[in-house]
Amino acid sequence: MIVVVYAHPYPRHSHACAALLSAFGDLPGVEVRSLYERYPDFDIDAVAERSALGNAALAVWMHPLYWYTAPALLGLWFEQVLVKGWAYGEGGGALSGKDCLWVATTGGDAPAFSAQGRHGHRFDAFAPVVEQTARFCGMNWLEPFVVHGAHIVAEAELRNAAMQLRARVQGWLDGHQAP
Amino acid sequence: MIVVVYAHPYPRHSHACAALLSAFGDLPGVEVRSLYERYPDFDIDAVAERSALGNAALAVWMHPLYWYTAPALLGLWFEQVLVKGWAYGEGGGALSGKDCLWVATTGGDAPAFSAQGRHGHRFDAFAPVVEQTARFCGMNWLEPFVVHGAHIVAEAELRNAAMQLRARVQGWLDGHQAP
Repeated sequence: MIVVVYAHPYPRHSHACAALLSAFGDLPGVEVRSLYERYPDFDIDAVAERSALGNAALAVWMHPLYWYTAPALLGLWFEQVLVKGWAYGEGGGALSGKDCLWVATTGGDAPAFSAQGRHGHRFDAFAPVVEQTARFCGMNWLEPFVVHGAHIVAEAELRNAAMQLRARVQGWLDGHQAP
Repeated sequence: MIVVVYAHPYPRHSHACAALLSAFGDLPGVEVRSLYERYPDFDIDAVAERSALGNAALAVWMHPLYWYTAPALLGLWFEQVLVKGWAYGEGGGALSGKDCLWVATTGGDAPAFSAQGRHGHRFDAFAPVVEQTARFCGMNWLEPFVVHGAHIVAEAELRNAAMQLRARVQGWLDGHQAP
């Protein structure tokens, strides 16, 4: 019912993403697909990916921010999985009406994402690339879940973020249970 | 003196990018590096790429827009070439002060890039991802060169765009010749 497309280039060295993932990956009906573990050679099985997406009512796109957007393998996943005639265009619409939740972690702390900060923009300024990818496929874009300062955030804060994310996903599940 | 990092996933089927490239690729001091032809397996030689960049005073990042940003191999190039200790951070700064010209083609026509259009945003809304990647490395961000409607633009219009791009690059060369 929920598919988590997880794109951490070094999943075994992940700190923030791993904590977020473990917080809700055990909920019933959640399938986690770790792209970098499945496709270390960037050789994506697009048919399998489409099949997993087709079964889900909520897609979670979860990754650390790399150069202000999705890591390269998730970019390739967008290109190879979300193709014309399936995700959009004539004969498309396979994702239409599904929900999409973007979960992103950033190395930079929140103040770095400002006009005066190291990243020159608020985080929101980088969102349209991923957001419009989902919207172009007819998905409902949920409020993104972003954790800043993944390298420096205190354990307690990270646990708190993970609990918040779990609550959001649990809330989604509660609202989508078969009557 | 100028390195063109060219990222067309199907360079032999390119129409707009190929026309733009051919318009200035023959200028003296221009080196074109076609990423998808060099690295069809996504196995980037980061050392060679850094060496080519190091010799250039202007880097041109040229590609069709894929899902609102750079195609996956250019995303991977950003990740593997622009690393900490070389492009930024302590010991970094190899690109500092170099100029960066973004040349992007889009399949959608210009009206599609508006709040009411198919892409939901003006083209500018998608620029911060690539722009801030350059700026974070200390590069000077030149006014991007964007051609919309790559699939539908008339030949004469495309020739005109190619001539404009050639003139911009020629102008840059004129301003950077050894005295």
